[in-house]
Formats: sequence, C-alpha cells, structure tokens
Amino acid sequence: MKLGSLKSGGRDGTLTIVSGDLTRRADAADIVPTLRQAIESWGAVEPLLRRRAELLEAGQWPDAKPFVSGDMASPLPRSFQWADGSAYLSHMRLVRKARGAELPPGAETDPLIYQGGSDIFLGPTDDIPSYDQSWGLDFEAEIAVIVDDVPRGTTAAQARGHIKLVMLCNDVSLREVMRPELQKGFGFFQSKPASAFSPVCATLDELGVAWDGGKLCLPLVSTYNGEWFGSPDAGADLAFDFPALIAHAARTRDLAAGTIIGSGTVSNDAYKEVGSSCLAEKRMIEIIEKGSTEIGFMKPGDAVRIEMFDARGASIFGAIDQKVVAA
Amino acid sequence: MKLGSLKSGGRDGTLTIVSGDLTRRADAADIVPTLRQAIESWGAVEPLLRRRAELLEAGQWPDAKPFVSGDMASPLPRSFQWADGSAYLSHMRLVRKARGAELPPGAETDPLIYQGGSDIFLGPTDDIPSYDQSWGLDFEAEIAVIVDDVPRGTTAAQARGHIKLVMLCNDVSLREVMRPELQKGFGFFQSKPASAFSPVCATLDELGVAWDGGKLCLPLVSTYNGEWFGSPDAGADLAFDFPALIAHAARTRDLAAGTIIGSGTVSNDAYKEVGSSCLAEKRMIEIIEKGSTEIGFMKPGDAVRIEMFDARGASIFGAIDQKVVAA
Repeated sequence: MKLGSLKSGGRDGTLTIVSGDLTRRADAADIVPTLRQAIESWGAVEPLLRRRAELLEAGQWPDAKPFVSGDMASPLPRSFQWADGSAYLSHMRLVRKARGAELPPGAETDPLIYQGGSDIFLGPTDDIPSYDQSWGLDFEAEIAVIVDDVPRGTTAAQARGHIKLVMLCNDVSLREVMRPELQKGFGFFQSKPASAFSPVCATLDELGVAWDGGKLCLPLVSTYNGEWFGSPDAGADLAFDFPALIAHAARTRDLAAGTIIGSGTVSNDAYKEVGSSCLAEKRMIEIIEKGSTEIGFMKPGDAVRIEMFDARGASIFGAIDQKVVAA
Repeated sequence: MKLGSLKSGGRDGTLTIVSGDLTRRADAADIVPTLRQAIESWGAVEPLLRRRAELLEAGQWPDAKPFVSGDMASPLPRSFQWADGSAYLSHMRLVRKARGAELPPGAETDPLIYQGGSDIFLGPTDDIPSYDQSWGLDFEAEIAVIVDDVPRGTTAAQARGHIKLVMLCNDVSLREVMRPELQKGFGFFQSKPASAFSPVCATLDELGVAWDGGKLCLPLVSTYNGEWFGSPDAGADLAFDFPALIAHAARTRDLAAGTIIGSGTVSNDAYKEVGSSCLAEKRMIEIIEKGSTEIGFMKPGDAVRIEMFDARGASIFGAIDQKVVAA
C-alpha cells in the first residue's frame, strides 16, 4: 500500500491512498483524516486503508482521481519527531574530512543520531528557499522510515515490527552554517532547515525482496541539474540498519508513533563508481583526487531530483524534485 | 489568562482554562479542543478563551470545576518543536567544568540552542522513570515560552510579539549519558529523555511587571527531597533573553506555532547565595570548594519540586512535582 498527504487541508495535510504505479489515488480522509492520525492508530485503520487500496489497485474504486505529485505534501507534512541517523560511514568520513574533523569515537560500533527539526517539512516538489548563498546549501538523499509507538528499551530485533512505512528524504543542509554550529557542541539547529520527503510512502510489502527486514536494498538515484549525480545502493556499506538505529533512539526513552527515522546520506565505499548523494561528498572527493574543487553549493536555479526504482524500473516513491529559489 | 491540558482526551490532552489562583477551572474544549490547536489559531481563539477566563475569574462561569494538578498533562503534552537554549552562562561554566569542557567559542555573544525531543512530555506530577542508575539522572529547572508562527528572519525586537504563553520546565537530563554523547558531536539524543512542564501556562499579562518583555524576573524555586535547593532569579545573569533565543532559532527557518523555546537551566552568578537549579551544578560547586562531592544523581525515591511565586507569594504556574521511580 502506498500513502501520501495532499497539501490541501490543515497543517497535517489530507491522507490519500495512491496506486502502486503512482497514476491514481483514492481519498481516504473518511477513514482517517491524516497520516499522522493513521500511524497513531495503525492497528485499527491499516486494514480499512488496505481494503480501499486493493479496490483502487483493481480498478474498482469508483472515485479514483489522477495522482499529481505537485499536489502532495511530504507524507507527514510535519511530525512530532525526526531522528536522523548517519549510518553510512563513507559519507561520514568524506564530509568530516571536508570540515577537518575525525570520525567520532566508536563511530563503527555506536550509531549516531541527531534530533532534527520536524515542525515544518517542505513538500516533495516545493522550492528550496535560498536566503544567503554563503550558507552553503546542500541536498542529502536518504531513506527514512515511519514507526508506530516504540517503547523504551526496544531491541533491534523487536524494532523490525515497528517499521510501518518507508520513504525517501532530502535532508537539506547548510554546510557553512554547520561547521561553526557543530563546534559549539549542541548539534545541528540553524544548519538544518526544513527537509522534504518523497510524494508517497510505502508499506514494507510494496518493497518485496528489496526490503530485507532492516534496510532497503536498491540504488538511490540523485540527479543534479538534469545530470546523473549518484546512485549508491542504500542496502550496501551501512554500518547500522533501521532496527539498529531505532533501538539506539529508544535506549533511554519511548518514541511516539509517527517518529521518522532517517538513514543519513546514502553513500557507498565505491563512491568513484556509484557517485554521491550530496554535494559536500562530491566536493571532498575532488579535493582528495585533484587537490581542489570547482563544485559549489546550490544556488538559485539549481535543481535536485531524488528517486528510487524497482526491479522493473518503475518509481517506487515518486520523485523528490526541488529547485532552489532566491527568497 | 492561565491555560492547561487535562490528561484525559487524546495524545494532545484536553484544553482547560484555569483561574488565576489555581483553584478552579472551566472546560474549553467546545471553543478549541487542545492547546496545540489553540496556539495554531491563536488570533481567532484567544478572545473567546479570554471571555470565558474572565467569567471564571469573576465567579460567573456556571460550570466551574476544582483544579487538580494531578489531572494535568504538560500544557502541550507533546509539541512539534522543543528548542532549548542555554542562556545562563554560570550554569554552562559549572556543568562544562564538571565534564572537563570549555565554554564553546562565542558563548557570550552567540546563543546556544539544541533541538530537543518533543514527541512525548511527562506531566507535571508524573513520576520520572529510572531505568539505570549509572545514567546520572538530573533535573533542570527552566523557564519556557510557547510562540505562534515565527517567520524566518524574525528579529529579536519582532520576536517579542510572538511570545504567547510562559511556563516552567523540568528538562530531565542523563549526565553520564551526556558526556560520551556530546563527544560524538551530534548534540543530545539519548541524554535527554522526556521533559515535564508546569501544570499551567500563562499569558504575558498574568505576569505583570515580572515579564519585562523578554524575560521573567522572579526567582525560580527548586526543592529537592523536601529541602530548599535553589531560587536563582530567572531575570538575572542571563546572556540571552527569549526574543534573542527566538531570533537565533529562526535565523535559517520558520518556526511553527506551538514551538516551545526554553531558557536553559536558570543559574545566577551568586550561586553560593541563591543555590542551583540542577544537581550537576551543585556537585561542581562542591568539587570546586571542597575538592570532592558526595551529592549523587537522582535515584528512586528522590523528588524535585519546581515552582515560581508572584509578589504576593502565590504560585503562578502550579508546581512541577516529580518523584523518581524504578522502572
């Protein structure tokens, strides 16, 4: 089952069910008005949503409407929690090299998660506002999951059952704001403006064998200004899968239903072949190889597209497709 | 006007209006069901809530009920954003000394804010669960404000008008989890379990001259296991007032209505006379003075009470009154 949120409605948007091929949708607000409320009572509403999704899939839902990416907010237009990991160590090595920092102690054995801002997310095709080009605007292509209520102390094995929905993320970052901010020791705040997520999120069964129980084993394709930028495999070279990240996040506290857990920027050790999922990495690779880089950060007019395709080449989540505009 | 949220109802509780003397309350859910929704449409609902508050105050609300602290959740039982500052430099100096860290660069000129977890808050009289005594459980008595929608780039002068409600906070902290976590460079996550807020929040007019437009100029009284622990003045020795913290938080992004901004642990330079608002500070003061400390962190059975009194000695927000229980 694929779900999304129409921009229309309130701050949480309006829930809609989307066909597997992303061509049609069925209103679902009569079952439950928003995805936020759906995940908060998942056990009760999932069967009702699935029944309608089956009718839509079978062409038997009488009121099917065309699916239009531009009508969509992020699946959760806002959330009570966005906990973003950094599970791909080759990304961490490269971006830290770029800001002159070492891998943190225990990086390979202890997951790294930061508390992200979640009060406002951009929609998947919303413009990214550029307020100050010296801030170093960058995209970060990631995988994210939505969980139901996760009790404190949940183990990684138990965490698998709490993963209900999967989607893509563009974790917008301000690289030049990040450097001094992280030196202050309190983590990211100003350096992480609103993120965006894919037009739809999908239940695990939609992913077939690509979902191995803990991670999504498919390339994550980023296109920058219309050209291929990277397609690292989200299932390769990650130090921690989603169950490990969730167990880490739930070590000292409960996580409320609707919590979004992010993988961090997808990156493979073979980055020379598969490319990257953010500009900071690409810049660092050039600096390592050539001693300098001419790759700048995003400026008004630049565009990023983030998408994932199934074995038949069909888009699974729709595309995050964003342009930078001067604000 | 004083407002609070009954625990009954859904995850956002149920809005209620509370009399100035904290003895009676009036249901308000027919005006707007929750404080979350009220702050999201503050301009429209505030006059309606105020009209009922006036009737309650005048003894003319026919359905007034007794106010019971134990029935209350935190005013926002959860929020889409909890951005906690660290505005009192004497607190920062002391707790950093305790973990062998220096004041971060620019601490006196550039506000420090971290993104806190906000998906679940404890109620003001809820037990604080202790899962592992080696984690170093501590309380932190703070002031917090709730804002309406704050556009990116809001200045400190403009921010004043966005502050709608004020309350107290116990920002529960795990000191021994914090030390290694902060070394990893991504800020707090595991070291900050659920915070709790006071039984009611108050509009600025309730605070009279104690609200100077940017801060609350009254002692914040903490009692630990029934004994006075500290009463530093929340209006003294802070490097940044709330408008400055809000402007900092809104530098690169919009803040959604319902965002809670915290002051950080209230602390005065004259800590020898006025005491402290957390155990970590008290421990460090002893270590500085005597070379060692016998003050431990909170263990099951320990209790903290955090309260603020007006010029006549009446409790303004009700008491955060929490006991640690083995979980």
